[in-house]
Amino acid sequence: VGTNRLEAFSDGVLAIAITLLILEVKVPAAASGRLGHDLLHQWPSYASYVVSFAVIGIIWVNHHAMFERIARVSRTLLFLNLLLLMTVAFLPFPTALLAAYVNRGGRDAHVAAAVYGLAMELIGLGFMALWVYLARTPDVLVEGFTAANAAAAVRRTVVGPLLYLVAIALAFVSAPLSLAVYGAVAVYFVLPGREARASPAGGPTPARR
Amino acid sequence: VGTNRLEAFSDGVLAIAITLLILEVKVPAAASGRLGHDLLHQWPSYASYVVSFAVIGIIWVNHHAMFERIARVSRTLLFLNLLLLMTVAFLPFPTALLAAYVNRGGRDAHVAAAVYGLAMELIGLGFMALWVYLARTPDVLVEGFTAANAAAAVRRTVVGPLLYLVAIALAFVSAPLSLAVYGAVAVYFVLPGREARASPAGGPTPARR
Amino acid sequence: VGTNRLEAFSDGVLAIAITLLILEVKVPAAASGRLGHDLLHQWPSYASYVVSFAVIGIIWVNHHAMFERIARVSRTLLFLNLLLLMTVAFLPFPTALLAAYVNRGGRDAHVAAAVYGLAMELIGLGFMALWVYLARTPDVLVEGFTAANAAAAVRRTVVGPLLYLVAIALAFVSAPLSLAVYGAVAVYFVLPGREARASPAGGPTPARR
Amino acid sequence: VGTNRLEAFSDGVLAIAITLLILEVKVPAAASGRLGHDLLHQWPSYASYVVSFAVIGIIWVNHHAMFERIARVSRTLLFLNLLLLMTVAFLPFPTALLAAYVNRGGRDAHVAAAVYGLAMELIGLGFMALWVYLARTPDVLVEGFTAANAAAAVRRTVVGPLLYLVAIALAFVSAPLSLAVYGAVAVYFVLPGREARASPAGGPTPARR
Repeated sequence: VGTNRLEAFSDGVLAIAITLLILEVKVPAAASGRLGHDLLHQWPSYASYVVSFAVIGIIWVNHHAMFERIARVSRTLLFLNLLLLMTVAFLPFPTALLAAYVNRGGRDAHVAAAVYGLAMELIGLGFMALWVYLARTPDVLVEGFTAANAAAAVRRTVVGPLLYLVAIALAFVSAPLSLAVYGAVAVYFVLPGREARASPAGGPTPARR
Repeated sequence: VGTNRLEAFSDGVLAIAITLLILEVKVPAAASGRLGHDLLHQWPSYASYVVSFAVIGIIWVNHHAMFERIARVSRTLLFLNLLLLMTVAFLPFPTALLAAYVNRGGRDAHVAAAVYGLAMELIGLGFMALWVYLARTPDVLVEGFTAANAAAAVRRTVVGPLLYLVAIALAFVSAPLSLAVYGAVAVYFVLPGREARASPAGGPTPARR
Repeated sequence: VGTNRLEAFSDGVLAIAITLLILEVKVPAAASGRLGHDLLHQWPSYASYVVSFAVIGIIWVNHHAMFERIARVSRTLLFLNLLLLMTVAFLPFPTALLAAYVNRGGRDAHVAAAVYGLAMELIGLGFMALWVYLARTPDVLVEGFTAANAAAAVRRTVVGPLLYLVAIALAFVSAPLSLAVYGAVAVYFVLPGREARASPAGGPTPARR
Repeated sequence: VGTNRLEAFSDGVLAIAITLLILEVKVPAAASGRLGHDLLHQWPSYASYVVSFAVIGIIWVNHHAMFERIARVSRTLLFLNLLLLMTVAFLPFPTALLAAYVNRGGRDAHVAAAVYGLAMELIGLGFMALWVYLARTPDVLVEGFTAANAAAAVRRTVVGPLLYLVAIALAFVSAPLSLAVYGAVAVYFVLPGREARASPAGGPTPARR
């Protein structure tokens, strides 16, 4: 079994999840003649749209890079990938939660930001699970990408879930600040590193999630 | 006519249905300062999201395995496949129903769980109809996969619709319990069996729905 | 320019439109302890889901058959195809309208059924416009499928828009009856005709919309 | 890295965004027995559906033409493309805004039309950013399409963002008029120019956004 249909299905889910995000940006209901004001007031909707779009976009880039290292699809890989997709497809919900609660202040805003971080944490763990599996199952890898390369990817990937734990704690201090942190992490991953030009032998790029 | 475009269309529908599930997880409306509590209270939303995601994911895996055994697409096959997709694309509705009613208790919870089971039943029958057709139309099968193999798949497939009938009856005893059963069946199908490595000659995997 | 990306994009739009239909089937809001009754009462939602799903499914089959006759994509063809997709992607709206109004009776039910017919009419005209263009632009056709074949397709295609006009008139007599007619027409198109096995030289299948 | 998966993902996002537009056309809630009147009254919903559908359709055509000129995908190109997709996937929101506010009159209608124009402006700038990048990075271009060709495309592309600025100003005079202008611009881009038959050496078509 090749990786083509698996990648196509994953791309489909990612493309849909990224495009569904806009459904959580709501048209202001109040017809108070102050639409401009109402639109500005719901800035968290736009901010969380941008951050979540960037997050899923980066996931797509790194997912693509990961699967360039995979030559064969096992049943375990199939279901680990479904597990990852389950966490990514969940993201529109915490995004909507954040948009709805972040500028209300109070404890609810902190909870919403923490739940968003929790969703990011699950995505990060989903990615790490795949890399751990690849490090332990080198026979599914393409030639030139070894178990050692995959293990290095695991070590680098663990940064994500660790940072998200910090951000979850931070959410209870300031919700907008934690949203800024999620955005900053996304921007960081966008910046080209020394492994900018992904190639099967190049290694590090797929680990940068 | 080859199977490529048929598979691509089916993948598209399955990818969309699986990703739309999140739209049924609603942001709590009440701004009571108890968002944490409200989020925990709607646990059936998350549970039914996970179960339905797993169900559609497994359908995708088995649909893929089935079409690896098919060499030619007939008009009948085309429409039987559309019928199956119609039942799968329907799943977000009973999922939302379950999420909304399961923890209200009373007769409504039982009805919601039974309707969910009914939707699963229809999916199971849709899959079985395809296998029955394949068992009777061996000239559309790939070389090495015979009518006898397809008939064996029918016998194994019938387990699904039978189990779902039991689960529907169970729904009237306890709605959360029936949701647990649907989840357990999904987990069971995820576990690799002796036919774990699907190959055109391997047979049983596609029948495991 | 080949037809591959055009077909893939069209398949995407059709797959999404067909899967979005379920979003119009609403979870009953009233928690009256009579969920079973409430679910039965909204039968028009399920009926219009089934009919619209069948309609888009058949459109997909016939769109596929049409593009097997096309060898080259011109800019005009590109935009005529977008026009057709615009009418098909519109279908979830009249479907929801029908579901909401058909069993309320009164003039509103008639209007909803007529609007549904109007949407079908536009789809039929969109298909016919493509066939007319193909009949007049034989240099985009595959070898073995002539302008005369395309002209024959136009003549057969015109049946659709004519029948839908009748159905629109019928909608003002009885809304459920007109829904039954739309369903019957869909079933008719599903039945295999003498041209069941579509081939570039076979002709009639693509015209059966 | 080739352009195939990038194009497939972009097509997916565009196909979903274009099909989601219909979700913003709402079924009239009032059951006043005047459904016909209510449906006519919400004409801005249909108008903005048609205009936004045409806009995304044209973006798809031009995106396709642009990527026919690209031979290699760099990391920068990947993220510039994601940025463009982020602006296009945002369009359902201003579309819904326009539909909800344009025929209420007053300042809100002007604001809604201006926000729609702002979204178009961002899309136009996103396209221009890609062309500017291509003009400065000729080594990713296909043979026969030079940096000079890309620079010409930049010059032609700048027309879009400039026109949209005018339309935004116009929105404060008349909201329906500005919607008409957006529609007219879309129609203009549909008309075949002297560069109607896109070919890698043909140049101008991709610049016509």
